[in-house]
Amino acid sequence: MRRAIYPGSFDPITNGHLDVIQRASRLFDEVLVAVAENEQKQPLFTVEERSVLLKRAVAELPNVRVTTFKGLLVDLVRETGAVAVVRGLRAVSDFEFEFQMALMNRKMEPGFETMFLMPKEEYTYLSSRIVKEIARLNGDVDKFVPAYIAEALRLKFPVPPASD
Amino acid sequence: MRRAIYPGSFDPITNGHLDVIQRASRLFDEVLVAVAENEQKQPLFTVEERSVLLKRAVAELPNVRVTTFKGLLVDLVRETGAVAVVRGLRAVSDFEFEFQMALMNRKMEPGFETMFLMPKEEYTYLSSRIVKEIARLNGDVDKFVPAYIAEALRLKFPVPPASD
Amino acid sequence: MRRAIYPGSFDPITNGHLDVIQRASRLFDEVLVAVAENEQKQPLFTVEERSVLLKRAVAELPNVRVTTFKGLLVDLVRETGAVAVVRGLRAVSDFEFEFQMALMNRKMEPGFETMFLMPKEEYTYLSSRIVKEIARLNGDVDKFVPAYIAEALRLKFPVPPASD
Amino acid sequence: MRRAIYPGSFDPITNGHLDVIQRASRLFDEVLVAVAENEQKQPLFTVEERSVLLKRAVAELPNVRVTTFKGLLVDLVRETGAVAVVRGLRAVSDFEFEFQMALMNRKMEPGFETMFLMPKEEYTYLSSRIVKEIARLNGDVDKFVPAYIAEALRLKFPVPPASD
Amino acid sequence: MRRAIYPGSFDPITNGHLDVIQRASRLFDEVLVAVAENEQKQPLFTVEERSVLLKRAVAELPNVRVTTFKGLLVDLVRETGAVAVVRGLRAVSDFEFEFQMALMNRKMEPGFETMFLMPKEEYTYLSSRIVKEIARLNGDVDKFVPAYIAEALRLKFPVPPASD
Amino acid sequence: MRRAIYPGSFDPITNGHLDVIQRASRLFDEVLVAVAENEQKQPLFTVEERSVLLKRAVAELPNVRVTTFKGLLVDLVRETGAVAVVRGLRAVSDFEFEFQMALMNRKMEPGFETMFLMPKEEYTYLSSRIVKEIARLNGDVDKFVPAYIAEALRLKFPVPPASD
Repeated sequence: MRRAIYPGSFDPITNGHLDVIQRASRLFDEVLVAVAENEQKQPLFTVEERSVLLKRAVAELPNVRVTTFKGLLVDLVRETGAVAVVRGLRAVSDFEFEFQMALMNRKMEPGFETMFLMPKEEYTYLSSRIVKEIARLNGDVDKFVPAYIAEALRLKFPVPPASD
Repeated sequence: MRRAIYPGSFDPITNGHLDVIQRASRLFDEVLVAVAENEQKQPLFTVEERSVLLKRAVAELPNVRVTTFKGLLVDLVRETGAVAVVRGLRAVSDFEFEFQMALMNRKMEPGFETMFLMPKEEYTYLSSRIVKEIARLNGDVDKFVPAYIAEALRLKFPVPPASD
Repeated sequence: MRRAIYPGSFDPITNGHLDVIQRASRLFDEVLVAVAENEQKQPLFTVEERSVLLKRAVAELPNVRVTTFKGLLVDLVRETGAVAVVRGLRAVSDFEFEFQMALMNRKMEPGFETMFLMPKEEYTYLSSRIVKEIARLNGDVDKFVPAYIAEALRLKFPVPPASD
Repeated sequence: MRRAIYPGSFDPITNGHLDVIQRASRLFDEVLVAVAENEQKQPLFTVEERSVLLKRAVAELPNVRVTTFKGLLVDLVRETGAVAVVRGLRAVSDFEFEFQMALMNRKMEPGFETMFLMPKEEYTYLSSRIVKEIARLNGDVDKFVPAYIAEALRLKFPVPPASD
Repeated sequence: MRRAIYPGSFDPITNGHLDVIQRASRLFDEVLVAVAENEQKQPLFTVEERSVLLKRAVAELPNVRVTTFKGLLVDLVRETGAVAVVRGLRAVSDFEFEFQMALMNRKMEPGFETMFLMPKEEYTYLSSRIVKEIARLNGDVDKFVPAYIAEALRLKFPVPPASD
Repeated sequence: MRRAIYPGSFDPITNGHLDVIQRASRLFDEVLVAVAENEQKQPLFTVEERSVLLKRAVAELPNVRVTTFKGLLVDLVRETGAVAVVRGLRAVSDFEFEFQMALMNRKMEPGFETMFLMPKEEYTYLSSRIVKEIARLNGDVDKFVPAYIAEALRLKFPVPPASD
């Protein structure tokens, strides 16, 4: 059985992430979506919230599981016996950062591959950061995330009462 | 009448921004320079200060107006009926971020164009961030910003008395 | 009246070019699509063929005209009194080449602006070169070019009789 | 069974290509190395030579097969039922070209994924083109290709007799 | 005598920095490694700690000296009469930032050159930031920094007692 | 004595090349400008013409010499005992190609450094290729090359007699 890990912050998951998960699920026997619990960043959603939202998002993909992790990605790779780490590549700036991380991880643990998939081109501009920024300004994010994520974002950033 | 918006933080305006404004003013009937009031960033100059400095900078361009906005750029586009948003492009890293924003904005509001202009090549290295960093270290910024901006920066970062 | 020039080889025109033309036609009073007659390259379609195909493509855009030119773009700019040259930007590699050309042209003739527009993201991968390569291999190009261009390509690259 | 295709010109195969093949062979049940027979390019080695050299290179990888193809890659994908096309990514310039091709191929045939693997970092500078250029100048290519490829290159570019 | 300055934060020094220092020391009569004392960033190591660690790292290079500086790099260049500032270039993102800084510095002080060297390719993924991140997660950094730096990092990020 | 080599095609030399030569001449005891005699490319100027034009261009720089070479750059480095190869870096696309070549050369001959210098920003768009293209179209190249190069280009591309 070949297992792949798709790691990320998923704060929150976007349609772009979901697209990558679906593509990966057709290439491996199991895809483990791994939510990074980074104590240094201040996420909008707790790791538990992100995990719950992700589980809902992948409920219909039978070979996709969700987990959380802290610490090094290479330790999770070793524990789970994964053969590959999947990353979505959207732009040149992604590319360089991802390559740095992948080469660093390979140096620490040579026994797995980092592989890159392309999301649908209409998601190339999507990122959790931009989605949060739009939600913070009470913009409409329904085109960018699943409906229940849009709802969860509205709870985090309620529309202020009209000021005059 | 065709109106274009040139949005930015302008914290503070540099010779590079001014160059883009002049170029845009020759392509449109009106250019609206829109100072973003971002509550999350901590600007060096308040939105009022930035607006006053900008008005002085564009005083001699009859078809350029200055405004401030908070919220989404696409809302300002709708309110003003602008046909275009103007952005300066200096480098590859600009390019990717700008494209992401432009595609995202187009998704939210398809009725306008983001168009990119090139500042003079001697301004390709200029940014508000670098100008502020030099001013903070009491370096000379007169080559990079108009004289009254240089003066305003010296007031923010006074030269410390000699320490020995 | 503000006139813009959209120069290119258009060998042949793709849906991506057409998208840029439509966007430009909303920003200027007149858009002049200028087919470069480069004696050194060996185009698939003659400059006359390209011009005819372009005229058909823009027939429904009242403020778009088609012309051909040889020689320097800046000479055409001077002759037509254009205020802007429009270019589509798709990728980082485009960006650098386009910037080089634009700065060079500005050095030769400072009185106009090169401005960049983004085609629809689903056209970012499109180029005349790739379309010709697919047509040469008798692949289906109907998703990438107008129907009459696909037809013209099939005439250039007829399907060979089955070989066994 | 999951099959992947690794297409290329392989004119000739380098250590970088071999590295990618080995990595891919651990992720899929079968890897089909597909030598493109491009009639327009003038390769140094014929498609038969390239195929023979490749077969020797992968002789010890039991789940790797070699084939040749002409025409569109997507047709080979359909015929072989491959779930993935594998490409090595070395640099930003690769990245953009590869993404264009991958998006184009996805548009023509949405039923497979293009995935990108990173060769060892010491192979990032390697390309068939550079290897041929060094061999043409009678430089030593033993560090860049398997020994029998170096030998084949020496046959193509014999050292000229000393001229004085 | 030709003196070059190699400025940086060195928080902490990595094998990549050391590689660049060694290369520079063969090109100039003296290389001055200059540790920037940036009051705004919150470094992991104090400027004194960084200076001590650097001195140990370059102890065997007779023409390399270590200093610290605050304020503008161009002022240090003037004071020391350096003819060149040396920077390591690893990736495209480096490239753009470094070019901006170099052009800005040239504008302020035209009498010196910024020159770029390439570290060994196996260090292209290395950065102080990534090394600190791995150390923070109690990963093994011995492949990336000299042994005494790895030790210093372990003192900053002690392994927590097992939690269950 | 430290010698550096500045290799290139110089077909023809531009103001950008000259700028890099001047900068390099201040960093090394001797700069050897090495004109590549590439039998495969079809240059506009013969290697002898290019050498003569270069010698005139550097006549006033006492520590700059001109030579021609065929074969591998690393062989020239070994023969001349150069400690460095100098290259101008203008743009991201330069960067990647230059890095590939530099790493390849380092693999073949580890005993020298490739170092990169930045030409004046107003020359970032300049290349021999673009200068030749403008001259071919009888455009004015006096801003881009020394006067005697402009003259030499006019001899290669005479203005045709008026056609009507």
